[in-house]
Amino acid sequence: MTIDDNLFQSVCQVARKAALFQSAADALEWDERTGMPPAAGEYRAEQVSALRSTVHTLRTANEYGENLQRLAEQLGGLDPADDHVTTVRELHRDFQRERKLPLELVSRLSAMTVRGQQVWDRARREDSFALFKDTLTEIVDLKREAGERMAEGSDKTPYEALLDEYEPDARISHLGPVFADLKGRLSELISRVADAPRQPDVSLLRQSFPVDAQRQLSQAVAEAVGFDFSSGRLDETSHPFCTTLGPDDCRILTRYETNWLPSGLYGTLHEAGHGLYEQGLRGDWFGLPPGSFVSLGIHESQSRLWENQVGRSRAFVRWAMPLLKQTFAGTLDDADVEQVYFAVNQVRPSLIRVEADEATYNLHILIRFELEQGLMSGELKVADLPEAWNAQYSESLGIEPPSAADGVLQDVHWSAGLIGYFPTYTLGNLAAAQLFDAIGQSIGDVEGLIEKGEFGPILDWLRENIHQHGRCYSGDRLVEKATGKPLSSEPLLNYLSKKLTPLYGLH
Amino acid sequence: MTIDDNLFQSVCQVARKAALFQSAADALEWDERTGMPPAAGEYRAEQVSALRSTVHTLRTANEYGENLQRLAEQLGGLDPADDHVTTVRELHRDFQRERKLPLELVSRLSAMTVRGQQVWDRARREDSFALFKDTLTEIVDLKREAGERMAEGSDKTPYEALLDEYEPDARISHLGPVFADLKGRLSELISRVADAPRQPDVSLLRQSFPVDAQRQLSQAVAEAVGFDFSSGRLDETSHPFCTTLGPDDCRILTRYETNWLPSGLYGTLHEAGHGLYEQGLRGDWFGLPPGSFVSLGIHESQSRLWENQVGRSRAFVRWAMPLLKQTFAGTLDDADVEQVYFAVNQVRPSLIRVEADEATYNLHILIRFELEQGLMSGELKVADLPEAWNAQYSESLGIEPPSAADGVLQDVHWSAGLIGYFPTYTLGNLAAAQLFDAIGQSIGDVEGLIEKGEFGPILDWLRENIHQHGRCYSGDRLVEKATGKPLSSEPLLNYLSKKLTPLYGLH
Repeated sequence: MTIDDNLFQSVCQVARKAALFQSAADALEWDERTGMPPAAGEYRAEQVSALRSTVHTLRTANEYGENLQRLAEQLGGLDPADDHVTTVRELHRDFQRERKLPLELVSRLSAMTVRGQQVWDRARREDSFALFKDTLTEIVDLKREAGERMAEGSDKTPYEALLDEYEPDARISHLGPVFADLKGRLSELISRVADAPRQPDVSLLRQSFPVDAQRQLSQAVAEAVGFDFSSGRLDETSHPFCTTLGPDDCRILTRYETNWLPSGLYGTLHEAGHGLYEQGLRGDWFGLPPGSFVSLGIHESQSRLWENQVGRSRAFVRWAMPLLKQTFAGTLDDADVEQVYFAVNQVRPSLIRVEADEATYNLHILIRFELEQGLMSGELKVADLPEAWNAQYSESLGIEPPSAADGVLQDVHWSAGLIGYFPTYTLGNLAAAQLFDAIGQSIGDVEGLIEKGEFGPILDWLRENIHQHGRCYSGDRLVEKATGKPLSSEPLLNYLSKKLTPLYGLH
Repeated sequence: MTIDDNLFQSVCQVARKAALFQSAADALEWDERTGMPPAAGEYRAEQVSALRSTVHTLRTANEYGENLQRLAEQLGGLDPADDHVTTVRELHRDFQRERKLPLELVSRLSAMTVRGQQVWDRARREDSFALFKDTLTEIVDLKREAGERMAEGSDKTPYEALLDEYEPDARISHLGPVFADLKGRLSELISRVADAPRQPDVSLLRQSFPVDAQRQLSQAVAEAVGFDFSSGRLDETSHPFCTTLGPDDCRILTRYETNWLPSGLYGTLHEAGHGLYEQGLRGDWFGLPPGSFVSLGIHESQSRLWENQVGRSRAFVRWAMPLLKQTFAGTLDDADVEQVYFAVNQVRPSLIRVEADEATYNLHILIRFELEQGLMSGELKVADLPEAWNAQYSESLGIEPPSAADGVLQDVHWSAGLIGYFPTYTLGNLAAAQLFDAIGQSIGDVEGLIEKGEFGPILDWLRENIHQHGRCYSGDRLVEKATGKPLSSEPLLNYLSKKLTPLYGLH
């Protein structure tokens, strides 16, 4: 079989046009979360909704769908990883999913979630879940409707249909047992660490670190790992993220806390990891599946690998030490590598997910995974969410949030309609550890390279094995192809155990 | 007669939807000119072109035009300044103009002008007209084609058809003689000033003014005159401008020069003047004629009034003096009001339009007015433009630019396709002086208010007499209604003469 070229060009043209409007909407949202004047939010929601509706209309048009159907029938016998085959298969898949959502629902959802973030932001600042409750209820109802519609004609639950958007083909029947096992083994490790004879002194990270100096540090670190500033920017926002506004326009955003160095430093490394993936996608396929990221789990594996496997290694601290001392002259003069290395690897149950350590982080995710399933099935009412949240924190992490701002209101996700998104973070953590093992086996002395600030070979390996493939393979297949094994939790558990045992003097 | 309400709502819905895409494109251009990564320009041009094409498609659709036509037939006997009548009349007028441009030309023009600005920016930085020549030629050809198409069926020249977009109904037969008279009388005044016994000492404005301090000053001054930061921002760019991204989202941009205080201070006042007009338009009519500015001449009258009639007055310098001394402690300690007042009113032929004083400024405009007419008629070739530019500067201002960057490449306008735009600056200067006279007659001791920093009554008068009316009256009619007289050059010439005679000791 061969693919009809005219037909192929015609669907690509539609998809590329949709990407123009999609990325324009993303640019408006970037602006909204960096510097938009406070009063401008209402109109901004209308703008974004108009753009996203245009995207939806383009991507669900009859003729476009018919052309994709005809092309999909021409794929028999062709290599599924071929760029053209991938384009047809994945655009057709996207069409079939989006087609189930009426334009009116898409438009309401997109306006609602822009407003949702505005309401959430105020509610968090005023520490009042009551301010957010009605808006969240509307969002949950709209997302449930979307999930139900997308699940129609399949054996998926509405929650799985939402999850599918972020992590294609992920199923609760598979994730549930993996996560339950992980929870048990992590909890056991965390309680051993809590009782360990040695504990880190994090006070040296709690000194005064002027924001200007932190900005310079973040810029230098992002550049060092390979983030390309000629086609990217680093900015500040209240809830860090990474967004791509064009094939040569990747924006990463971080936040700085004057009295807690890891927030800015590791936040930047995390977002730079996302940015390196986006910058490693093939620009000539921008807006089409071969030039798009494959899943959020894989996306998160890239950010976590740079933040944790690289950034929290002894070798990285060795490399960064002179830069830190120079940037914060007078503050870190007496600090040594071992002190800083131990401090940035503190493991301790805490309230805020984005500030959590590598071990407890996944417990934060599993809490959200359970709660959002409850919200979607209707078993958990939005009104009961704060209580359920606090109960879960007590049970899993042994601490109860003293306020909504430090509890149920801490994340932007649900306000932005991102339900089914959280589990991808833990999938990313698993994949990061597994990929980093494979990098070690492939390029040898990784620690030696990191210590010299030679991050190029790591990035090259990721470009070669992950970035360049776009959506040509599924996320699971990509990990298996790159590491020789199916995704599992063993590499993460081994990595944590190997790092924490000597640090904490465990036995 | 009455206006059919269903029909009216239906055309408003289309116009409002077009405004969503239009303002989204404006947001992308704002981003492009503030912080977009350098490599992102090519794709950004495609995004903006897609958005502007959508606007054009919406605004030129058959059904929309037919509805406007039917509504326009219902206006007989109704008050032309009524909001509904204005909406129909002006949307119909816009439709008739835009309809003459094929989508393909609009799309090419909009992509071309985004790229044009990028090429211009590089050419200016590298001081090379050769780098810009081909791009400018393409732009001029496209604009000529647009002008020819829009002039079809009227007695306008293509240049007048372009001018009409910025200054509705302006005609060369009217502007020509006014500008020629102005040129003669200004030249005479400027040469008297050049020979005057007293000259200002501007060295105190050429000291070192740290950018951070200038930013604070600009923020304070913009706030003082009434710019609302809850629905606006002040940023920096290489070529200052003001743009409105929504009913509560006005962005003004300025630039700071470390060794020349007026650049940042008066640049900010100028853009704040534009911003005050935009913020004074009625937000509930955003995207429709009653909530839109009437002409660029009127727009410029607002910026110039705040920059010059207010900002370069003795009273303003008196008010600003303590703020200046505090902001630049150690630099302006010994300066007194009279020194600063004389220095900010220096009149002297110079190379750069945006840095020119109130008197010579209009000569810069008249040069561009002549040159762009030549480019449009074809009498002047783009290749001959630098030579023609330099010859005009020698003739009118007695100085010849030593470089293209300080000459023909200094303005962004032509690169952005803004041909027919320059004359509106001089119209704005004329209107600013005339409006300021009327403000004095209406509210009494203006100088006394300015000296106390009480800018509210001036802004209120402008809101009442100009801003709130949107496009309900023509620009000319608005000036006449507000001042009791048709627009003329007498107020500007009187204002300059009255200010410069004592300052320079003329007789």
